[in-house]
This record gives sequence, C-alpha cells and structure tokens, in this order.
Amino acid sequence: MSLDTAAQTPAAKPHERLASFLADDLVAVDTLIRARMASEHAPRIPEVTAHLVEAGGKRLRPMLTLAAARLCGYGGPYHVHLAATVEFIHTATLLHDDVVDESERRRGRPTANLLWDNKSSVLVGDYLFARSFQLMVETGSLRVLDILANASATISEGEVLQLTAAQDLATDEAIYLKVVRGKTAALFSAATEAGGVIAGADEAVVSALHTYGDALGISFQIVDDLLDYAGSADATGKNIGDDFRERKLTLPLIKAVARADDTERAFWVRVIEKGDQRDGDLEHAMSLLARHAALDETRAEAMAWAARAKDALAPLPDHPLRAMLVDLADYVVARIN
Amino acid sequence: MSLDTAAQTPAAKPHERLASFLADDLVAVDTLIRARMASEHAPRIPEVTAHLVEAGGKRLRPMLTLAAARLCGYGGPYHVHLAATVEFIHTATLLHDDVVDESERRRGRPTANLLWDNKSSVLVGDYLFARSFQLMVETGSLRVLDILANASATISEGEVLQLTAAQDLATDEAIYLKVVRGKTAALFSAATEAGGVIAGADEAVVSALHTYGDALGISFQIVDDLLDYAGSADATGKNIGDDFRERKLTLPLIKAVARADDTERAFWVRVIEKGDQRDGDLEHAMSLLARHAALDETRAEAMAWAARAKDALAPLPDHPLRAMLVDLADYVVARIN
Repeated sequence: MSLDTAAQTPAAKPHERLASFLADDLVAVDTLIRARMASEHAPRIPEVTAHLVEAGGKRLRPMLTLAAARLCGYGGPYHVHLAATVEFIHTATLLHDDVVDESERRRGRPTANLLWDNKSSVLVGDYLFARSFQLMVETGSLRVLDILANASATISEGEVLQLTAAQDLATDEAIYLKVVRGKTAALFSAATEAGGVIAGADEAVVSALHTYGDALGISFQIVDDLLDYAGSADATGKNIGDDFRERKLTLPLIKAVARADDTERAFWVRVIEKGDQRDGDLEHAMSLLARHAALDETRAEAMAWAARAKDALAPLPDHPLRAMLVDLADYVVARIN
Repeated sequence: MSLDTAAQTPAAKPHERLASFLADDLVAVDTLIRARMASEHAPRIPEVTAHLVEAGGKRLRPMLTLAAARLCGYGGPYHVHLAATVEFIHTATLLHDDVVDESERRRGRPTANLLWDNKSSVLVGDYLFARSFQLMVETGSLRVLDILANASATISEGEVLQLTAAQDLATDEAIYLKVVRGKTAALFSAATEAGGVIAGADEAVVSALHTYGDALGISFQIVDDLLDYAGSADATGKNIGDDFRERKLTLPLIKAVARADDTERAFWVRVIEKGDQRDGDLEHAMSLLARHAALDETRAEAMAWAARAKDALAPLPDHPLRAMLVDLADYVVARIN
C-alpha cells in the first residue's frame, strides 16, 4: 500500500490518488489480467485483448473493487481476482458494444472490430467473459458469484433495451434509467458491492457500497450523455452531437421531447425516428434543448446522483479511501460545472 | 419418470427413448427455460430466444445432464437448472456462431441474425450466457460452477482457434481436435459431468461421465464433418461440400492435405488458402479424399470415439439410462455406416 505516495500528491485527481494508494494491488491485477488473457492455442485472443486493455483506460472499475475491499479491511488475495473479473467483463462488453455500434474508434485508437473483424470481437469478448467467470469461481464465494451473475444479466438486458429503445420517441426517463443501469451502473455497483462482500463487511456496509457504485455509475453516464451536447471535443474526445446523429435518445433529448409542442414533435419524429437529418438540424435541436432547459435539468440530475453517491458512504469506516471515493463522486460531475 | 412409456417403445431412436424416460424432467426444463428467457423490459430477448429454442432442436445436451444426474440417483431439483444452463449456453453459442459464420439458415429456418440483425444476436447471446450463469449459481455448487466456467472458456477459445485455423493448411489433427472439443465436446462433457457432480456421485463415476460426454461430442462432430463430404442433403439438411466452399479445414481435408504430393498441395493452396475455387474443384477434391482414404479413416476415427464413449460407461450403475446412453453413442455413428 502506498499511503505515503498518495498523501504526497494531494493535488492529484481522485482516480490518480486511488491508483497511487492502490498501486501494489493494481500491479497484481495487471499481472493477473495478463496471465489470464493468454491463450496457448489462439494468439488472436491476447492480441485483441491487449489492444484494448493496454490502451490506457483508467481502470476505474477494478479500482472500485480494490478500494471497497481495502476500505473494509480485507487482507486476502481475492479482491485482485474480483478486480480482474470486473475489468474482463468491462472489456468484453466494450468489444461487443463496438460491434453492435459499428464503432471505429475507442480510447483514441481504431476499434478491434476495425483492426481485426467483428468475428474476433464477438468471440474474444465471449472468451473474456468466460475467463472472468473462472476468476470469480476461484474466489469460492457464491455470494460474489450471485452479484456478478446478476450484474451480467442487467448489463446485457440493458444493451438489448438500448437497441430497441433507440430511435423510439416513446423512450421515457424510466427506460433511460434502466438502460443507464445496464450499460454503466450495474458493473459499478457490482464492483463496489463485491469488494465489500469478499471482505466480509456488515450488511449495512455492503448495501452502502452497492448504493455508492450504482449512484456513481448513473451520474457518470448522465455526465457522458450531457457532454455530448454541452461539452467540447477537446475535453471529451467526442464531437458535439454524435448521439444526435446516431439518433440516440439520451436524457437531454428525452426531456425536450417530453415538453415538445406539435411542431417540435414533428421535428423530433423526422430527425430521430425517421433519421432524416439535414443541415441546421443539430443547431435547431440545441435551441429546443435550451428552450426547455433540458441541459440544465440533466446537469441537476447528474449532480443529484453524485450527491446520493457521497451520502451513501456515510456508514463506511473512516479511511483515506473513503475520502477518495467521496472526491471521485465530485470529480465525475466536475466536468459539467 | 416415465419408465413405462420408454419401455413400451423399444424401437424408438435412443434420443427419443431418453426424451420419453426423462419426459417429466424435460417439461420442468422447458418451463424453467421459458421463465428465464423472459425479459420485462426488452421483448426482443424472448422473441429471438424463442425463435431458436422452439425450432425443435433435439435437446440432446440438457438430456445428457438429466440422464447423468438420474443415473446417479439424484432426487433434488437442480439437475433441471443445470440442464437449462447447458441449453442456454448452447443457444448463446449458436447465436454468436451464426453472426461469425454469417449463416442464413439454422434448423431449417432463417437465422436470428437474418430475421433481426447481428446486434440482436450478439446481445441476446450475451443475455442468455448471463442467465445461464445465474441458473448455475442457484445450484449452490462451486464445483459445478467450476466445470461450466472451464467449459465456457474452452468453447470460446475453440471458436477463436477455428477462426484463425480456417483456411490455414498448417491446421493439423491436434488443432482439429482442440477446435472440436471447443465447438462440441466441451459442452457435452460438462453436461454429463455436472449431472454426476450435482448427484454427489463418486469420483470414478464423475470421471466416467466426463469421458463419455467428451468422446460422444468428438464422435458427433467428426460425423458431422464427414457427412459434409459423404452424406446426402436429405439426411443432413446440408449440401455436399459446404465446408469445402467455406474453406474449412475439417478432418477429411486435413488427412488429404497431410498426404498431398506437390501438385495436390498446390491445388489445396489455391482452393483453400487462396479461396480461388472453380467448376470441378469439389469433384477433384473428392477424388483426392478417395485417393488418400481420407473419408474411410475419418469414419474409423468417429467409430473409435464412439467406442471410447461406450467403454467409459462401464463403471456406471446398471440402469435403463446407461443402456440408452450406450445406444446413443451407437446412434451417433449409425448415420455414417
């Protein structure tokens, strides 16, 4: 544990302080990931996996598991297995998402489906999911297996829901929340909850860790969806209006559609449901978002979820990691303020 | 248990006698499958799943689990969960296989990727895999989870290996066997082994059940690959030479390539590696298979694996189901005699 290092860099961002505090654990996670993504017979597997794993993601999800376990005083080896599990599940879903979305770039690099092919992305994703499953079994905790099995079902159900809800103006905030839980929050909450369970924490603490991960994940995704309309390409690596062009019904649009008059509704039907988009449509959409205060309200919801995440941490033991998790919730919404 | 019904139809095929003997269990499996393929929020999931599950597959894999458990005297409820697990894993791999192979027909009907889209097939496959994982966790048996996690990894590794080995003349019989274990035998052996484990059978019996499933699965797949060159479209629903046109290196071709002289090798390089196929090439390929006795030797290997499957059953308790499993091994190779 590198408490000293973390203490020496108070100005660092929360996820950097977490990485510093959990440095030894993260090395163990990376070693385990590298060992388990190997395949004696199918070299395509580590090639594809390494492309994504080594692209410099923030390792946010595995850090949540490590932090939760350490915060609860865990001293055994299995939080490392669970952190690797969570990263494998995340990587598997990214591989499949990029096939489903026909994406060409991820983390600033060409996607695996572009560099190899869709087949490799589908099958290597399946392999990583199976490997994650083996890692969980090694922990010997049926409760952890239950948590991660349920999260896996929520994730894929959310993905299918997103597929069928896309381009459908009937998508409301309740459906949006289910999609967001599936695509982001389910793995966040499973990551924190599993960390608490493996540490043998009290039920109240386990429940608090679940709530924290869930609220943090929802906040994280709402911010992402807001930045698609309110961010700058420099900060996000995405262009303004990508979701609009892809006809995705995210929270800002859902709010504007809910308040649309007949003329506005006809506009949304044309550009989102029919996909008939013309020059100036994005600008008109932005003016409708402004008219109905859709971006301000979306921002307020992201803030409220971040506040819920922080509140959830109250029953947790006083610990440097608790403070970092509080700061992490603030940091997630800092980009939109 | 419908022992009487089974006894009344001695002339039925072995899988029909198994279905008859296990009729009550199979009803329970179907009920569980139907309950677990539901999704409150994403109706696309049961639509896609039902398309495949109700297309009239033989339910061979779930029957293997049920038969193994009953044969070992199991009286609990969880063999039904495991049978549904095995069917879900099988259905998930079919959905992903059809995306990878760009298939248009499966079990005589258009594939899900054709009726809906690749996206739905990828994501519904993921959902079924997650659901299978939940079903396993419900059994509370870590050993069963270990068996099925390992099988899942072997399956997807075999699929990736098949992807990279296809069209590569360096593919030898050892690689072929790994691919076959991945695509077929791993789930057969996990199905039988898990049935024994849930019944609390002796190690010798569990090991025998694993060996039976493995050998049966290998025999099954070799027969399938042989029939692609030696079958009739009526019997197989496939056209002669489909694998040849898709440039798949299955056992008959691997044997012929291993014995090719320079001229023959140039032919295989052109039609398989380069994919430059012309009129008359299939006929020439068939003549090379005949020249090197590739079909006869492939047939002999299928027979040998079926014999191994039957031999493996020796340590099992004397039981009507044991006799049906012996007959099943004979039946698998009956199509090539």
